[in-house]
Amino acid sequence: MAAQIPQSNEVRVGKKPVMNYVLATLTLLNQGVDRIEIKARGRAISKAVDTVEIVRNRFLPGQVRVAEIRIGSQTVTSADGRQSRISTIDIVLERVK
Amino acid sequence: MAAQIPQSNEVRVGKKPVMNYVLATLTLLNQGVDRIEIKARGRAISKAVDTVEIVRNRFLPGQVRVAEIRIGSQTVTSADGRQSRISTIDIVLERVK
Repeated sequence: MAAQIPQSNEVRVGKKPVMNYVLATLTLLNQGVDRIEIKARGRAISKAVDTVEIVRNRFLPGQVRVAEIRIGSQTVTSADGRQSRISTIDIVLERVK
Repeated sequence: MAAQIPQSNEVRVGKKPVMNYVLATLTLLNQGVDRIEIKARGRAISKAVDTVEIVRNRFLPGQVRVAEIRIGSQTVTSADGRQSRISTIDIVLERVK
């Protein structure tokens, strides 16, 4: 029996077009993942919200819901050693049973 | 007795620098407003999260908390009549008693 690679339930939103992340989310849901964390930092935060809104309004209305939204901060160190703060968001999307 | 103008408890985050919204939030808190809604649409969503994170980490650590975060969508009609969807966020910030 082949070793099972644990399935990811995370979508990390970054610089690609929003539809890439919408598709990644829909793919996980179609694979049977019932609870997905959509995560982003900095300016990608708006795109994480777009991803969730497009999935739940356009593609799966009534089939998924936002279970939790967390915001926070991370400290990032740049190449020159300077530290700065960056905001983060985690949006938990759940399949409605 | 002069008529009381109802005090706003909203900060609408837009295109100005983030510190403008941080200051607006701190001003409301100093005026005694205990529950503030920080709202944004579209690309300003990231800045709304920044505003909250800067207030609660840098200026008022331990004194405020995020009571609620809501995301949603609005339909906007452009000058040429075309309709499009825009994401929204409302973050409720509360003074810790």
